[in-house]
Amino acid sequence: MLRLKMKTDPRWVENVVSGNIEEILTDHAYCEQKAASSAISLIIQYPEHEELVSQMADLAQEEMSHFKMVHDEILKRGYELGKERKDSYVNELVKFIRVKGKSREESLMDKLLFAAMIEARSCERFKVLSDHIDDEGLAVFYRDLMESEARHYTMFLKLARKLCAGLDVDGRWRDFLDYEAEVISRYGKSERIHG
Amino acid sequence: MLRLKMKTDPRWVENVVSGNIEEILTDHAYCEQKAASSAISLIIQYPEHEELVSQMADLAQEEMSHFKMVHDEILKRGYELGKERKDSYVNELVKFIRVKGKSREESLMDKLLFAAMIEARSCERFKVLSDHIDDEGLAVFYRDLMESEARHYTMFLKLARKLCAGLDVDGRWRDFLDYEAEVISRYGKSERIHG
Repeated sequence: MLRLKMKTDPRWVENVVSGNIEEILTDHAYCEQKAASSAISLIIQYPEHEELVSQMADLAQEEMSHFKMVHDEILKRGYELGKERKDSYVNELVKFIRVKGKSREESLMDKLLFAAMIEARSCERFKVLSDHIDDEGLAVFYRDLMESEARHYTMFLKLARKLCAGLDVDGRWRDFLDYEAEVISRYGKSERIHG
Repeated sequence: MLRLKMKTDPRWVENVVSGNIEEILTDHAYCEQKAASSAISLIIQYPEHEELVSQMADLAQEEMSHFKMVHDEILKRGYELGKERKDSYVNELVKFIRVKGKSREESLMDKLLFAAMIEARSCERFKVLSDHIDDEGLAVFYRDLMESEARHYTMFLKLARKLCAGLDVDGRWRDFLDYEAEVISRYGKSERIHG
């Protein structure tokens, strides 16, 4: 369903993540926080799109509730949240949408597709975590969250198609999927959600 | 209970706000959004304070739910959200806490007192709005929200006293109340929540 072109090798979980649960939880907590902050940014940038504003207000709440769930998992295990980790995967994705001279509609389309992509890849990563992580509680936790990410992915793609109907949204999405596949092929080595 | 030293003159509502509900609602929506964003900033800046992180994660959700309620009131009336308005009152408050060479604990104290102050003044303003606004629906709306602001004000003061117990939190708060009274005495003339 996600149409991502590159699957994550489960050895990422077995060899890298399972030995460093604290690190993956901290990174994950901040992924949720950044998703909430991005939803708020979309509201500030595009207040004229009422449907977008309403959906982003709901999304920001949901992402912060997930942040809190991850924080609770951290505390339950006696870990510490710590500082935000860098997300170089996301920084590489940003380069694809950093195009000069775009119209307002094109910028919105790119931001929505960017959000859709991160949700899609996070969903795929949560699935791999759920299937392979050496912690029964977290396996269930990631299965539940995986479903939210899939829902958000669909929401962002639908918003892009609806609010940017004058543009070739599906063509841009196909190009972005190709770009993302190349980026992610170089990952799978570190204890990050997109690592 | 709020201990603010300067009451808002109800003529602010009668002469300025009632004729410009769209403007006050837009400004209010962004006040809620900024409160959510500030809560998130506190998480990022002080991840080591578990209680703070948990409470700010809840607060960010609540503020975004209020944002959505205000947005719904805007849409219900056929108004538009529009762009964020400047909040010069808040910019003046910032000057009080902008002190060089502060310790990490002092910075945290000031940020918590700053948040407490904005909640306290917003609470007072919502009360005046609720009592004097020429719109029955909004009168009820502002009475309900007033109670949330009072709760948040108490939460921030308690957090400051607990997390910065080595400092003279109450002395700093008294000085801040004096400062705020001088600032707000020059307001009450524009269609903003803190205008």
